Amino acid sequence: MAAPFDLVLEVLGWIGTAAFATAGALTAARKRMDPVGFLLVAGITAFGGGALRDLLLGLPVAWLRRPDLAILAACFALAVFFLAPVLKRRGMGRARTPRVTLLLWADAAGMAVFAVLGAEAALRAGAAAWVCVLMGVMTASFGGVIRDVVCGEIPLILRREIYATAAAAGAGGFVALEALGAGRPLAVGLGAALAFAIRAAALGRGWSLPVYGGRGV
Amino acid sequence: MAAPFDLVLEVLGWIGTAAFATAGALTAARKRMDPVGFLLVAGITAFGGGALRDLLLGLPVAWLRRPDLAILAACFALAVFFLAPVLKRRGMGRARTPRVTLLLWADAAGMAVFAVLGAEAALRAGAAAWVCVLMGVMTASFGGVIRDVVCGEIPLILRREIYATAAAAGAGGFVALEALGAGRPLAVGLGAALAFAIRAAALGRGWSLPVYGGRGV
Amino acid sequence: MAAPFDLVLEVLGWIGTAAFATAGALTAARKRMDPVGFLLVAGITAFGGGALRDLLLGLPVAWLRRPDLAILAACFALAVFFLAPVLKRRGMGRARTPRVTLLLWADAAGMAVFAVLGAEAALRAGAAAWVCVLMGVMTASFGGVIRDVVCGEIPLILRREIYATAAAAGAGGFVALEALGAGRPLAVGLGAALAFAIRAAALGRGWSLPVYGGRGV
Repeated sequence: MAAPFDLVLEVLGWIGTAAFATAGALTAARKRMDPVGFLLVAGITAFGGGALRDLLLGLPVAWLRRPDLAILAACFALAVFFLAPVLKRRGMGRARTPRVTLLLWADAAGMAVFAVLGAEAALRAGAAAWVCVLMGVMTASFGGVIRDVVCGEIPLILRREIYATAAAAGAGGFVALEALGAGRPLAVGLGAALAFAIRAAALGRGWSLPVYGGRGV
Repeated sequence: MAAPFDLVLEVLGWIGTAAFATAGALTAARKRMDPVGFLLVAGITAFGGGALRDLLLGLPVAWLRRPDLAILAACFALAVFFLAPVLKRRGMGRARTPRVTLLLWADAAGMAVFAVLGAEAALRAGAAAWVCVLMGVMTASFGGVIRDVVCGEIPLILRREIYATAAAAGAGGFVALEALGAGRPLAVGLGAALAFAIRAAALGRGWSLPVYGGRGV
Repeated sequence: MAAPFDLVLEVLGWIGTAAFATAGALTAARKRMDPVGFLLVAGITAFGGGALRDLLLGLPVAWLRRPDLAILAACFALAVFFLAPVLKRRGMGRARTPRVTLLLWADAAGMAVFAVLGAEAALRAGAAAWVCVLMGVMTASFGGVIRDVVCGEIPLILRREIYATAAAAGAGGFVALEALGAGRPLAVGLGAALAFAIRAAALGRGWSLPVYGGRGV
């Protein structure tokens, strides 16, 4: 039972890393950076949230022992640098919308995966349930926050659409299912699906929570 | 003697957490965020400085073992979200001045308390005197710096009014009084009072230090 | 052999600290900050990158045990505060160019030194080669990134000129030479010289890497 589940975590980690590296590289593309800039921004996006989680929990920073993940992120960053202009020229680049859209969806996939993986890592480190949920939200969102702050963009989590809420729902769903005895593989899968579904609804249908002063001001 | 002093530290910690959570929530209000945004920004403001201090000193991050403080910060954040519009409608909201004023004073209270608590935590961890003062300044100011950077505001410590100076005076006063044998409870109280008095003077009377190039330009 | 090399590392550490403290103070000057602001921004620039490296590697934060470096940085910060206006009045301040130029060159010197010292510290901690290069880049660039983000400037590494690339070349050159058996003192010297030469060429001749979309857009 343990080995297949470890493989599931592995695959999810690759998906999240690739998705966040792509989102980071697309931000670098908007800023017209050079290849080294692409690598840096992709790496910050993919590994920033996990690094913060590990530091706060007092664990060794995981990705420094994972050259495979670093290479994966680098490949996706350089692929965006070299291939995106080609795709764009072939008609996939009407206006600038597709790039922004791809950025938002790649970011959504990475967020959903990392919310659950972050909560799972905290759970394995023996953290309390509320800390697990918080670490899920941080793993999912802080790489993107650092990316946006460093690049001078408005952080995604500050925009009106649901973002941190989706991550909290996914991480919270995982922790709740696990506590109810659903088994970790099922809890991981359902948690990530929940986070992605909420974020997808926010992106596709414009869902949002009521904001402060939104009623009369 | 130890138990009552621990209680004093506890109460100061609650005051600082509540004040900084309020300041964070008021910043979230200016940005029209949703409730999850209020919780995040309040948490960053209240716990960011202490987390940085603990990481730099190599201590376990204290607030991850303090669900009571997390709940306290969450209550104040949600109270601002739900109650502030009511108060505003009752005439406490002429122009937008009161909200900014409350933000500045809540921030001043949190700064004064956390400057001394940060220095005290560093002293207990065996740090040198200059490191204690620095950790006081960081605990007092970095939560607000991260809040302002993430929210796209100009960090308070960069504005002309005295801010970090007040924190340094409070932390330094605490360390000096403690070294002179004043006893930790007295040193804590006087240090926090000193930091708050200096910051209050800066806010109320526009005190400031001479700035670079201020004389001839 | 060990003792003279330790002295070389010491001297390079002083040079890098002084250069980055100066660059930080010049940024504070552009923002018209007060003396405490100068100290804070100089300290963030000089010690931010090394602190991040130490945290990620799980080492105790080195500069908290180095009051000598803290005093050095403080002296350079205050020297800029008090002396720069005098020099400016004596004709060294035509327009605002000299200040920006000095900032860029001081930053280049600090970057070159810290890229190699950061990689050397990671190597001594037993990190893999690619982690050493990455830690060199982070030590060299993140102090400046935090400085620019906190001060509301566009981070240097995002501008078109080569910056992180120069740090990566210096750190990579050091790691490669060391692996080839060149001896650590020689590898340190050549690595720092390489990083500085590349950055100097970028500053002096406007060298840059091809950027995304640079060809047809």
